[in-house]
Amino acid sequence: MIVETKTAVFDEPLYCESGRILQPFQIVYETYGKLNKDKSNVIIITHALSGSHHVAGFYEGERKAGWWDDFIGDGKSIDTTKYFVICMNNIGSCFGSTSPMSIDPDTNKPYRFKFPVLTISDIVKAQMRVLESLDIYKVKAVIGGSMGGMQALCYAIEYPDFSEHIIAMATTAYTRPWAIAFNKVVIEAIRNDPDFKDGYYESKDIKENGLKGLAVGRMAGHISYLSPNSMDEKFGRKYDDTDGLYDLFGRFEVEKYMEYNGYNFPHKFDPLSYLYIAKTMNIFNASRGSDTLAQSLDKIKAKLHLISFSGDLLFKPEEMEEIYNAMKENDNKNNVTYKEIDSDYGHDAFLVEVEKFGDYVVDILEERI
Amino acid sequence: MIVETKTAVFDEPLYCESGRILQPFQIVYETYGKLNKDKSNVIIITHALSGSHHVAGFYEGERKAGWWDDFIGDGKSIDTTKYFVICMNNIGSCFGSTSPMSIDPDTNKPYRFKFPVLTISDIVKAQMRVLESLDIYKVKAVIGGSMGGMQALCYAIEYPDFSEHIIAMATTAYTRPWAIAFNKVVIEAIRNDPDFKDGYYESKDIKENGLKGLAVGRMAGHISYLSPNSMDEKFGRKYDDTDGLYDLFGRFEVEKYMEYNGYNFPHKFDPLSYLYIAKTMNIFNASRGSDTLAQSLDKIKAKLHLISFSGDLLFKPEEMEEIYNAMKENDNKNNVTYKEIDSDYGHDAFLVEVEKFGDYVVDILEERI
Repeated sequence: MIVETKTAVFDEPLYCESGRILQPFQIVYETYGKLNKDKSNVIIITHALSGSHHVAGFYEGERKAGWWDDFIGDGKSIDTTKYFVICMNNIGSCFGSTSPMSIDPDTNKPYRFKFPVLTISDIVKAQMRVLESLDIYKVKAVIGGSMGGMQALCYAIEYPDFSEHIIAMATTAYTRPWAIAFNKVVIEAIRNDPDFKDGYYESKDIKENGLKGLAVGRMAGHISYLSPNSMDEKFGRKYDDTDGLYDLFGRFEVEKYMEYNGYNFPHKFDPLSYLYIAKTMNIFNASRGSDTLAQSLDKIKAKLHLISFSGDLLFKPEEMEEIYNAMKENDNKNNVTYKEIDSDYGHDAFLVEVEKFGDYVVDILEERI
Repeated sequence: MIVETKTAVFDEPLYCESGRILQPFQIVYETYGKLNKDKSNVIIITHALSGSHHVAGFYEGERKAGWWDDFIGDGKSIDTTKYFVICMNNIGSCFGSTSPMSIDPDTNKPYRFKFPVLTISDIVKAQMRVLESLDIYKVKAVIGGSMGGMQALCYAIEYPDFSEHIIAMATTAYTRPWAIAFNKVVIEAIRNDPDFKDGYYESKDIKENGLKGLAVGRMAGHISYLSPNSMDEKFGRKYDDTDGLYDLFGRFEVEKYMEYNGYNFPHKFDPLSYLYIAKTMNIFNASRGSDTLAQSLDKIKAKLHLISFSGDLLFKPEEMEEIYNAMKENDNKNNVTYKEIDSDYGHDAFLVEVEKFGDYVVDILEERI
């Protein structure tokens, strides 16, 4: 499946939760499959912190598939011969949507720290603008994991008539200190790096040379995406043969993994975007504006499906259960299902263990659940 | 209890496991209580990564007690009216024992990266030299948590006739990738900091100005010492009142905790010591030199007491159980006890929840277990 990125440009302002305005703004996105005549086959995929709109298929001439390609495609769980799938790059992210490195029309320079602090609600609001521009006002499902799951919950609460199903995986109603702490390591590591230049770096310098602070922060991030058990399985105590045991910087396999993933990351991800997106996660709270979580969830009209992973330490099954239990206090209590997937893989399970939940998602979409 | 630090200096070489030699070397230590006539009341406390020999009591004029003062002192679980307690600063550490910043007699300059890579065995070997110098050849117990527990295991295996009891808490027979990964964040954060100057920093500069890389690494370390649940309890989602929600760098309580502990750390701990000590933990393997862990543990003659903490993610209860089960394969199978303490506190439980294991340790020392 060869795919292309599209761009939606908006001259009208985006009013952010903070009271700030983004104008103009743009969102890049991809679609897969075909919109049917009565527009009843639309599925929205929301992406996580470092994810992008490139969720499936291949770009012309490239060999690397989209990040959820195991899950989405012709004949796959999200079957693109049947569904019209849309994935949009979150506003604030660095893959083509308006971000801190976009040009601020007031100054004709990049916004940098003048970019408004965004919330998950702002991200979803911007997505809704894209969907309106495509004449889509109702969808079959919104599906997302991690920060994508926060967006899915936000769709459910703030746009109750929009989606028939909401599938939120490996996520939470409000980010807890464990996750905030991991984000903190990244934030401080970025800010302390002299090459970050207090936000006044040039993008091309970072893309070419990397940014060690972001790399180190990303290494911490990778710990949070795995678990003690998944690391045992994946790496064990394998030691790099070429390094001696008494070489101070001799490396275990897990250290090589972290170096590889850490140091590559800044070549493809922008540090200011990271700071802004981490912030949206840290301050996400599905009950904001309501007295209780249950009260907030009471607005939901869609069928809400919660999927957690037993080994997930970043957004623990207990956090998903809390959402389930809060729903059960409400009149819409029959509109929720909860499934915990048995997995040692940690938070990353929603990305890599598609075979464990693919059929379940098919059952949801086929209205068997 | 007012205590003083003592120094033991050795002109004879310390032969390290790597084949390297340290000569001369010194160890600083403290003692508490009085050695009885038949020298049957000695207890050795081994300390963890960033710990020191100052395990109990106060220095003249200071108000901060030693790190395990709740556990050790007159009338406490380790009762210093009864026992003669010794705690030695590990070689390689930065509180007065020979370390990478000590003067290399070959060059009359600090060793820095010329310091030999040490192992837990080397650390214990150096401690044995101190004990010999005090004419102590047999002790009642060796007690330690985390990396101190590794030392305790090492005493048990390598000096079988030395201690009656070995109490190893919150530790492991070999460090697994989860813990190695956290150490990796610290290692990379230190090395990338320009103020580290590839190891050619001046100690006084770091002590005065800190070292941001070590600070960031330490923040990651603090995550590993806690757990999702302990963080929920300790911090919740409390947000600094003085920072607005839409301030990009507004801070949650957990972030303030990390900043405080992270940025203070380099003022009291040396980055090269950190690298060398983390390495001893990473390469620790209680079965090295034997075909199996059971075979290695078969050498133990002491009574080995293993204490784990249910919420400890750094050295999980399963890791302690593995030691227990390996002991059970041996002829000395009756020489082992295992207790899992119910705790949400994470790895730090061995430091802060003394009340949960204090009486149990008393029972061990009084030979009731």
